[in-house]
Amino acid sequence: MSKANLFYAQSGGVTSVINASACGVIETARQHKDRIGKVYAGRNGIVGALREELIDTGKETARAIAALRSTPSGAFGSCRYKLKSVTENRREYERLMEVFRAHNIRYFLYNGGGDSQDTANKFAQFSLEQGFPITCIGIPKTVDNDLPGTDNCPGFGSVAKYVAVSIREAGLDVASMCESSTKVFVMEVMGRHAGWIAGAAGLASEQEGDAPHIILFPEIPFNREKFLNKVKRCVKKFGYCAIVVSEGAQNADGSFLVDTGGRDAFGHAQLGGVAPLIANLIKDELGYKYHWAVADYLQRAARHIASATDVKQAYAVGKAAVEFALKGKNAVMPAIIRGKGKRYTWRIGEARLADVANIEKMMPRNYICRDGFHITDAAREYFRPLIRGEDYPNFKNGLPQYARLKQQLEQKKLRSWK
Amino acid sequence: MSKANLFYAQSGGVTSVINASACGVIETARQHKDRIGKVYAGRNGIVGALREELIDTGKETARAIAALRSTPSGAFGSCRYKLKSVTENRREYERLMEVFRAHNIRYFLYNGGGDSQDTANKFAQFSLEQGFPITCIGIPKTVDNDLPGTDNCPGFGSVAKYVAVSIREAGLDVASMCESSTKVFVMEVMGRHAGWIAGAAGLASEQEGDAPHIILFPEIPFNREKFLNKVKRCVKKFGYCAIVVSEGAQNADGSFLVDTGGRDAFGHAQLGGVAPLIANLIKDELGYKYHWAVADYLQRAARHIASATDVKQAYAVGKAAVEFALKGKNAVMPAIIRGKGKRYTWRIGEARLADVANIEKMMPRNYICRDGFHITDAAREYFRPLIRGEDYPNFKNGLPQYARLKQQLEQKKLRSWK
Repeated sequence: MSKANLFYAQSGGVTSVINASACGVIETARQHKDRIGKVYAGRNGIVGALREELIDTGKETARAIAALRSTPSGAFGSCRYKLKSVTENRREYERLMEVFRAHNIRYFLYNGGGDSQDTANKFAQFSLEQGFPITCIGIPKTVDNDLPGTDNCPGFGSVAKYVAVSIREAGLDVASMCESSTKVFVMEVMGRHAGWIAGAAGLASEQEGDAPHIILFPEIPFNREKFLNKVKRCVKKFGYCAIVVSEGAQNADGSFLVDTGGRDAFGHAQLGGVAPLIANLIKDELGYKYHWAVADYLQRAARHIASATDVKQAYAVGKAAVEFALKGKNAVMPAIIRGKGKRYTWRIGEARLADVANIEKMMPRNYICRDGFHITDAAREYFRPLIRGEDYPNFKNGLPQYARLKQQLEQKKLRSWK
Repeated sequence: MSKANLFYAQSGGVTSVINASACGVIETARQHKDRIGKVYAGRNGIVGALREELIDTGKETARAIAALRSTPSGAFGSCRYKLKSVTENRREYERLMEVFRAHNIRYFLYNGGGDSQDTANKFAQFSLEQGFPITCIGIPKTVDNDLPGTDNCPGFGSVAKYVAVSIREAGLDVASMCESSTKVFVMEVMGRHAGWIAGAAGLASEQEGDAPHIILFPEIPFNREKFLNKVKRCVKKFGYCAIVVSEGAQNADGSFLVDTGGRDAFGHAQLGGVAPLIANLIKDELGYKYHWAVADYLQRAARHIASATDVKQAYAVGKAAVEFALKGKNAVMPAIIRGKGKRYTWRIGEARLADVANIEKMMPRNYICRDGFHITDAAREYFRPLIRGEDYPNFKNGLPQYARLKQQLEQKKLRSWK
């Protein structure tokens, strides 16, 4: 089989371990120089392919590539850009093919969530129809943990660890001050449609009274009276109440709590942020002093507290994607398969992109307590191994040292795009 | 000299290392069993003394006390409670004396910020006047770093490290997405009157273009036009703009950009929420897509990313406080004295509480760039050693293991308070 080049792109919201997948891809590809020539990375994801902005990762030192393993964010740039269907925008598919052909790219590895797996799948179909010989492999990534076909998604375990650690720490803070100060603390976490991240924060409570006391899931319609009663009972019993709220918390009619057109905690027009909204509701109705935090990007960028399990799995799916490509597989994605035994084990399996694309895996109802405000033992069993182990980056002068790449672009061969 | 008991209390907003000071106090006191009998900790700070709720730390194992070194928050409970002057509320001073006398307490160690040093100082004066033999020693603590008489305050270095690490990580996240998504990220940090914490976040930028690009200090009146211009220039030059804003950012007239109208027990304004305000301003005026984060308690509770220097210093001031007490010193506080050499060194010195109480140390103007939006090299030199070193807590099942104490109360001897 002749030698061909590989194109790798990062897509969608980045994570603290997507670069570990990039590291797995590049290091593995470098071990197969007989089959894989250059490894290109798309500058800003798939847009880099359309614009023929191909970062030649061969210009990066082995040390720089190794450093990707412990660098958060998307080192080559990511994008929020979804290819339409072929009938809607055939030009884009043709352009991709043209760029890949011009640069002798026969391996296309796309690292992203559901939308990206859909793109990879569409392009695989199109290429087959066109008789263009390319291997399309998806690499799973999403903090939202909502991809089907895989036990969990790389990126999720580290966010899960961050939110669990954070609410444990902040919970202790509030506990120590609640006698005379803040009684309610609200931490907002990501998860627009599924409560995986919010649920994982529940791991922090191991004994009765531990934070968090209440979790608000997108899956459970917000019931104001029930919630306020629960808050009151918590404060009476434990002296304080630590709450984790998913940004996607919803009303009974399916609308987001933050989309209610309400005013924020300060009486200003709504600026976004369900945490201040919830905190303010509690203040108004129960009178408790509150504090709130919105972790936002901090949670998905927090490589300093990444889960070692997550980092290993992120690397492994990158590595497996190259191996799949070399085996000539197409339109598939390496998946993480959990072992059946009591001790947590995992291995890399395979999922068809057609089965993964555009499907959101919601949290099972049996992961959420009957009253809707916390997680069950089944959920703990699922979440616990995913946050296990620490994998600290190197520090210098007190700060984590993250990869700085040269990002040298390959010379263009085609006319400009658009 | 006869044996007497020691009373230790935590006060005000807690930090991720105030328990390291507690650990220093208790472990050192245990080494002087000839002079120090029981070591009591006030349940919820000084309120515990007024209510005669004295936690007998002698009931805690050596292992539990050692674990305090790596446990955030105030393990014995803290409070926002400031003693008035003797003329205003003599009863409280008499009550403290009564409780101390009843429990043979002759050492009073008060671990807190400016207000607490003031309380310790007032009580020392009162005791002298009354001829009550007690040694009052302050132990510095505040994330705000605004105590005079000491080069820095235990608690600050760890928050500084947290905010610098966080904005570095989130900055990378935004950088990788800015082509097609978020262009402006605003992170709100603590610091009501002084910009020490916001300034420390500036350490994250080591090369041109690194986050944060803009810091908004309480010391520099907010200039809307200048600020918006700077944001626009950043986005044009680097593709994105990462902003750190102090919760205490102020208008030219000295009012806070955000003031909820609430007041805490000390009469301080309850702040929080300036990040969405700034983000919204940018959206309205420049149209950039934004994200924002409010770290709130997460920053001061983040023991998982504490500065090793900070932990050592927090322990050292606790240890020194006991040694000061045994030497019969009174109305003083161990202070951190920075060596003159180029290599960072520090030792424990001594500050008079009278010189510390109720004075806020602001950031020198030469720590802030001329344009008011970043820190200078002088600031970097000051901040850098304070965040140096990592001191990770123990983890089990992916989560940090923090001390759980028995908190057994000594039997009361007096009538109830109030």
